[in-house]
Parts: sequence; C-alpha cells; structure tokens
Amino acid sequence: LLFKWNIIAFRTVQSYNYFTFIIMKWELMVLGSSSATPTSERNPSAQVLNCGDRLFLIDCGEGTQMQLRKFKVKFQRIDHIFISHLHGDHYLGLAGLLFTYHLLGRKKGLHIYSNPELREIIDLQLKASGTRLLYSLIFHDIPENKALSLFEDKKIGISCFPLLHRVPTHGFTFRQKIAERNLIKEKIADLEIPIQQLATIKKGGDFTDKYGKIHPNSELTTAPPAPRIFAYCSDTGFNPKIVPYIKNASLLYHEATFMHNMRANADEKQHSTTIQAATIAKKAQVNKLLIGHFSARYDELTEVIEETRTVFPDAELAIEGNTYKI
Amino acid sequence: LLFKWNIIAFRTVQSYNYFTFIIMKWELMVLGSSSATPTSERNPSAQVLNCGDRLFLIDCGEGTQMQLRKFKVKFQRIDHIFISHLHGDHYLGLAGLLFTYHLLGRKKGLHIYSNPELREIIDLQLKASGTRLLYSLIFHDIPENKALSLFEDKKIGISCFPLLHRVPTHGFTFRQKIAERNLIKEKIADLEIPIQQLATIKKGGDFTDKYGKIHPNSELTTAPPAPRIFAYCSDTGFNPKIVPYIKNASLLYHEATFMHNMRANADEKQHSTTIQAATIAKKAQVNKLLIGHFSARYDELTEVIEETRTVFPDAELAIEGNTYKI
Repeated sequence: LLFKWNIIAFRTVQSYNYFTFIIMKWELMVLGSSSATPTSERNPSAQVLNCGDRLFLIDCGEGTQMQLRKFKVKFQRIDHIFISHLHGDHYLGLAGLLFTYHLLGRKKGLHIYSNPELREIIDLQLKASGTRLLYSLIFHDIPENKALSLFEDKKIGISCFPLLHRVPTHGFTFRQKIAERNLIKEKIADLEIPIQQLATIKKGGDFTDKYGKIHPNSELTTAPPAPRIFAYCSDTGFNPKIVPYIKNASLLYHEATFMHNMRANADEKQHSTTIQAATIAKKAQVNKLLIGHFSARYDELTEVIEETRTVFPDAELAIEGNTYKI
Repeated sequence: LLFKWNIIAFRTVQSYNYFTFIIMKWELMVLGSSSATPTSERNPSAQVLNCGDRLFLIDCGEGTQMQLRKFKVKFQRIDHIFISHLHGDHYLGLAGLLFTYHLLGRKKGLHIYSNPELREIIDLQLKASGTRLLYSLIFHDIPENKALSLFEDKKIGISCFPLLHRVPTHGFTFRQKIAERNLIKEKIADLEIPIQQLATIKKGGDFTDKYGKIHPNSELTTAPPAPRIFAYCSDTGFNPKIVPYIKNASLLYHEATFMHNMRANADEKQHSTTIQAATIAKKAQVNKLLIGHFSARYDELTEVIEETRTVFPDAELAIEGNTYKI
C-alpha cells in the first residue's frame, strides 16, 4: 500500500509536469498590422510569439517598443529578434528598443537574426549616440536566398526560408519539438513501473516487468499532440515555392497588402493580395491563416477578410493587441 | 469723393493684409514629451512649429510620423527638419518619415539640419532598403560647438547654439523678422497718400505732401508688435551660457527631465531639473516657459510643473497634441 501511495504521489507530480506541458502557451500577439505607411490606427510590422512564456520578437517596425508597453508585454523576456528584411517598416523600431534595453540596465545577451546590413546600421547608430551597450548584441547573419536553421533547443526549432521581395527577405518558421508520449496513468500504476523507467517509456520505450514479460509502448502510452508550428511570411509576392517550408502550419501569418482587384499593383511591388495569401494557406494545408500588412487605403477591413475567406475560410485579420492561439 | 472711396477700398485691402500679418499663426505643437525611454503615455521628443502655416519640425523621435497623423498635422508642408543631437529619442523617427514622404510621392526637396553623422545613417538605411528617394534630401551639417545662422528669409531667421550634453547637441531659435510699421489709417486717408508710397512708409519712411510739407513717419505709423521668438533647448545640463541666445524669447522650450531632488542625477547625465529650467527662463527673461522631456519615473506631472513655477510662474507642461501660442 505504501508503494502504491508513492506511485500515486509520483503520478500527481508527473501529471502536473505533463499538464504544464500540454497547456504551455503558444500564442502570437500582433503589434503592428500596417504596410509601409502607417496610419493613425495601424502601426508597422511587429509580432511577438509566446512559446511557453519565452518570447520571440518577429520584425520590429517603428513604434514597436511603445506597442510592447501599451499591450503590457514583458519585453525583457525577449532574447531573440528576427528581422525579415530591411525595408523601414520592418526594422526601424529596433534601434529604439535596443537603447531602451540599455537604459533599463539589461545584462542578458540579445540575439538578432537578419540581413547582415542591419549590423552596420545599428553599429553606426550606437557610435553616433556614444553608447556602449551594457549587454551583448549577438548578430546572426542570414545570407541572401537561403533556407536554414537559425535556432534549436529542446523545445523549439526556428528556421528561415527566402521570400519573393525587392530586397533580400526571409520568412520564419517556429516548430515545437515533438512532445514526449503521454503515459496511461492506470497502466503505470497497475504494472508498478519504477519511476526511473518512465522517462524512457515517454520517449517510446517498452517495459519489461519482474516476470520478464514485455509490455509494448503502445499499451503504456498514447501519441503526443501534433507539434505546433507558426509560420511568418512578410513581405512577399505570390510564391508557391514557399509551400514546403510552411506545410501544415498550425498558424500561418501571410501578408495581404492588397485586395485582389489590385493584383497588378501587388505583382509590381512584390506584395500579395487576399486571394493569393489564401491560396498559399490552402496549398500548404495550414490550420489557420492570419493576414496583415494592410495597405493604408483600407480604413475598414471587413471586405479584406471576407475576400480572403472565399478561398480559405479559417482566416483572421491581424489586429494590434490581439493574441492568436497556436 | 471718388478718390476718397478709392482710398477706403484700398485701406480695406491693406487692413486685410495687415490683419493677416498680425494674426499670422505662430504656434508650437508638442508631438513627444518623454525622455529617452518612452512610456505607454508619452512619446520621444518631437515638436512642430507653425509660423504662418509654414511648418518646421524640431527633433523627430521614434513614432513622430504616427503622431503627425494622429494630430492631423499637414506634414507635407514640412520642408525643414532640425535635429538637436543623435541620441535615439531625438531622431529615430526620421528615417520612417523620409520613407513615408517617398511613398506618398513627395517631389519637393527636404532640408535637414543636424550633426553630420546623421547623413551617414540615413544613407545606409536608404541603401539597405534599395530606395532612391523621389525628392532630394539637402543636409546642412551643424559643426560641433558652434552658434550660427541656419536659415534666413524675409519672414524668419533660424539659428543654432551649443547645449551642454554628452554628444554634440544644439538648441535652436526661430525669430520672426521685424514686422513693418502699422499705418495709421485715418492719417493715410486724410493726407491722401498715394498707394505707391505706402510700402516705403511702412518701412519707416516719411511722406512729403503736394505742398512740400514733410510728415514724419512717427505721425503716420505706430510701432509694429515685437517679433516673436521661439527657443528650443533639449537636451542640456544646466548651462547659463545659453542665456544670450534665448534672451527675451516669447516661448522657451527647455527640457526638465528630473525634479530638483534628482539634481545629482541630472548633472551626471547632463540633463536639467525643473528648477534649473526655470532658472534659465528667468535669467533669459522669456515670456513663457514650456518644460518637457520628462523622465519615465513621473507618471503624473503636477508636482513637476508646480516645482517649476516656484521659480518661474509662467511655465507650462509640454503635453502631446497641445498647441502653444507664441
């Protein structure tokens, strides 16, 4: 009985760990949704991805630090910033954020993934202001036109892939690592499986009991939930070549600067229309599509989202301050 | 009688011109009032000076273009931008504004007055974004530690002078040119002074009537109103050496980052306290003082302005979106 109780106590702890794992937040907050010219209502591009309370900043248009404050994001938790390309509306807020971290006494290093020219710009801005940052900036250059892994740890893998735009531009994917299998609690208790063996079983191992009988993993565990994937595609012209990179994303953010009647304009400027963003989402069989980077000409966005949904029904508008579960 | 009527008709036109001259708007709008780290309520430094519907932008912190839109400033009318120094909170909004002008199809040249390093930064940002501006940028370098005239036309003279800060920093003065003297309408009509001579008289000339009698200017005109002067001093430590440059300003904007109990902090960082800003205003015998560049530590500014007024009663807080008559 005492042993049973131990198992139960243990199970409680395990369940708690397991529970925190499955409820681990993966959600995206939109900080800016406008295209190149901001409006009085919409700010330039920036999003913050929360993966279990670790924050990743994706693009950093002018005003991002004010938006982070406005929406009460704990922005000191951001250690990695991803810049898609060096059009002003995607990075002009970065220098201000870096200065603010300095003034707030940040000590932790900060990783920036970008086209290499960003480093020169930031260096010049630091020099002009006579600032020697209190923390280290670690630049990770993204070479033009390459798909590669940018960051990897136990929980997440982050990669980039080329988009179709007038200057070197990359999209990003954030992939949750395959979760461990779920233990079937009753089986673990009934078979009195020692604590030490549970880690192996969660990874897919079988269990041999004291009588030498093998219990296959499939009887002890259930499959983990599908890993979550967030894909970010901005700015880009219509480009089906990106589909393999963003396949099956839980959430795809794809720019939709124009409605489809402005397709010629979109093609010329290498931006996308509503229908083009939706077509990419459909081809990539993503769960959900989020559109943004709206042209300043659209005050009201109802028609923009309605047109998108004619091709891909599970589409949403990127609204500043809103969070989207992944 | 016909002649008299002509004169009266003429007087009406003249009065109208004169009237538009004296009511010619000189007013300042504050776009940003925070010190280096913006808050969710306050933006970094920027002000727009309206001199008879000609707009001058002074400093251009991050988010200035959004503030210009929010407060419905006709920002295409800005042809001259003055940057006090290259700390990020005073210029990081400039690149975004320049890109926006380009995207809006601006053709008119734009003059920028600044420390020369700004040109390098903007050049690099234009290069990184692959942008060739549709309009010309005319940079006017301000050499370190110099007081000099930056701009001059019939109506206004703009000068800079050195402030006391950690990087090369300049304050600016905007001086209305001496107005023409006011015609005494009754005298002009009674003496039947020909239209052609009025311009000379407004400039101080006497009038010789058809009998050869000289009517001295003092009998024909009254003195014009004192020319308006706006002086901008941010960022700066306490520095009475600036007094001669800002003497008798109609409106002095002087930074007051800290309350006076933080004087040591102000000295160290070469910023000013409330009492120091007020002391400069008093020494310079200005008409009105406007304080700003408030530290993020002050949520509420009542004590800040009250402390300032103990030394200089006619002081106001710089509030974003507010305009201040000059």
